[in-house]
Amino acid sequence: MTKRIVALAGDGIGPEIMTSALEILAVASKGKFAYEVVSFPFGGAAIEQVGIPLPQETLMACQQADAILLGAIGGPRWEGVKETPESGLLALRQALKLYANLRPTKMQTFLEEKSPLKADKVRGTDFVIVRELIGGLYFGQPKYYDSDEAIDTMNYTRKQIEQIVRLAFELALTRRQKLTSVDKANVLANSKLWRQIVQEVSEEYPSVEVEHIYVDAAAMKLMMAAPTFDVIVTENLFGDILSDQASVITGSLGLLASASLSIDGPALYEPIHGSAPDIAGLNIANPVSMILSVCMMLRQSFQQIALADQIETATYETIAATGGTRDLGGQLMTSEFKQELIKRLE
Amino acid sequence: MTKRIVALAGDGIGPEIMTSALEILAVASKGKFAYEVVSFPFGGAAIEQVGIPLPQETLMACQQADAILLGAIGGPRWEGVKETPESGLLALRQALKLYANLRPTKMQTFLEEKSPLKADKVRGTDFVIVRELIGGLYFGQPKYYDSDEAIDTMNYTRKQIEQIVRLAFELALTRRQKLTSVDKANVLANSKLWRQIVQEVSEEYPSVEVEHIYVDAAAMKLMMAAPTFDVIVTENLFGDILSDQASVITGSLGLLASASLSIDGPALYEPIHGSAPDIAGLNIANPVSMILSVCMMLRQSFQQIALADQIETATYETIAATGGTRDLGGQLMTSEFKQELIKRLE
Ligand SMILES: CC(C)[C@H](C(=O)O)[C@@H](O)C(=O)O
Ligand SMILES: CC(C)[C@H](C(=O)O)[C@@H](O)C(=O)O
Repeated sequence: MTKRIVALAGDGIGPEIMTSALEILAVASKGKFAYEVVSFPFGGAAIEQVGIPLPQETLMACQQADAILLGAIGGPRWEGVKETPESGLLALRQALKLYANLRPTKMQTFLEEKSPLKADKVRGTDFVIVRELIGGLYFGQPKYYDSDEAIDTMNYTRKQIEQIVRLAFELALTRRQKLTSVDKANVLANSKLWRQIVQEVSEEYPSVEVEHIYVDAAAMKLMMAAPTFDVIVTENLFGDILSDQASVITGSLGLLASASLSIDGPALYEPIHGSAPDIAGLNIANPVSMILSVCMMLRQSFQQIALADQIETATYETIAATGGTRDLGGQLMTSEFKQELIKRLE
Repeated sequence: MTKRIVALAGDGIGPEIMTSALEILAVASKGKFAYEVVSFPFGGAAIEQVGIPLPQETLMACQQADAILLGAIGGPRWEGVKETPESGLLALRQALKLYANLRPTKMQTFLEEKSPLKADKVRGTDFVIVRELIGGLYFGQPKYYDSDEAIDTMNYTRKQIEQIVRLAFELALTRRQKLTSVDKANVLANSKLWRQIVQEVSEEYPSVEVEHIYVDAAAMKLMMAAPTFDVIVTENLFGDILSDQASVITGSLGLLASASLSIDGPALYEPIHGSAPDIAGLNIANPVSMILSVCMMLRQSFQQIALADQIETATYETIAATGGTRDLGGQLMTSEFKQELIKRLE
């Protein structure tokens, strides 16, 4: 059965890195994996075309897809518009019930030099942040402001918490069997319930070692002891902050991919970085984060493990052999990197 | 007029570092500054003595004080009690209207080696985080949970935001004239109002350069470009996370002090670190954070600038001459460090 992939290239460098990654996929998958790609407007690009960031057509295509690839969205051009590209992303997450955002952070030895942390603070770092993505302060009601006051609501149900916590435990089982749950249970009612549920669910996973830490302590520990983490699970806003902090540890945002899993529909894969409007169209963006997002999709949505491994290995070899794009300290243009990688795949 | 200082030694290493700091103050201030110190139970120590973390007597003494010194509170012993030491701290902040927490982060050259960040990422770092301390998710109502769901409320009024933002602008005027406002205006209603008010207030301070960044970007920037910050202003929870993250940048929590200013009463001064129950009573804690908290008090509450400078200079000289306590890589016990510092002051 031919798989259907929806590509949302988005804004800024989104289209360039999407094009490169799809070409790589086409070359590598020939004769091995049958798929079709359909592209739809999303984010700022959709605002330009049809006036809103998440057109009905785009949403419907996503709902019928087997997997979704997203480039990047946003830019100064759409700041202050009524419906921003970011609000389109939030609406998409909610409509597709993308409840779990997975962000692996793995330190590559060749990047030690580029990490802001000293080598002994990052060497061996290999963890995944599991962020709840459709609850908490992002979506809770009431949420409004006028010129005199503002209200946002953080709320979680037991079901929401159980779902994400269970996913994190399952993931820990496939890794080093350690789970760090991050909360603010000394202050937040949500965190008290969260901690209680983690405790309860942990009884189903006796082999997994569980640790609870406050979000402020977690922010410190990411700087002082990143290699001690295995799986980190946390609510939406804490996950937003910590996963961005974590992303710079490895020395290059341009190498990091993420997966957002749905409760009952297709998953979405995207680079961790933004749309980088300042370098858009210059053919210097690093396509690796998008290529690795494709690999995550091949593994997670299509069980194409060998194909994913092949692309990933070739990608790292290409970086090692060529130095990669400028953000990595190399000399290659986006298209040159892609060509080098294709040569290696053929 | 004799000034009245209330000392809340608290738990863990709190009493040891408080004793040292008060002895230093006694020696240094002789003939220069008239004060009396009265001590009251607070936190776990108060739970042990009278069953609750913030006894009425303690609160009343604080309300009548000219300034308050706090050691540290909390410990495993009081985890899960109904009223925790931490809840006492939150109640104290609210009762005293401690609306603004100021945390200076200044990189000392001799600590470059101890920072988790590479030297080129921290050298020259010198900023202050201004954290709103009695609003937002910490105190908003409704706030409750049962076994099925949980709710916390984030809310701010215009007045609350104006107050903290204005303080931050005033502080920026006395420094490098740069203000970074941290919010999550792409998601939170509170942040939209916050950003709008920062914009409005900024018109009264045309010489101050203002930058708005999202909290996730701020967590990245603290790792990648800490030296570019001057004054950072943000709401309560974001401030909690970012100031803890910032505190490890300098390489030693044991050197960092903070001030919490009141709307209409005495200010409170305390180290940034916790009560470190694992090393309590061993005479190895670093008293410097408490000593520098005393210096902040002398400057901010009592305008004793020369005296504060004298103590601070002697403190750094003592560290340089002796290597300081173990956390700094030195050999001195808490009491030995104190003696060395007293010798230098005499
Ligand atoms: C764009 C923004 C709404 C989004 C978020 O806060 O979730 C982004 O920061 C992310 O982490 O994907
Ligand atoms: C103890 C806790 C309630 C407190 C807070 O979250 O404010 C602490 O982390 C702090 O930063 O002073």
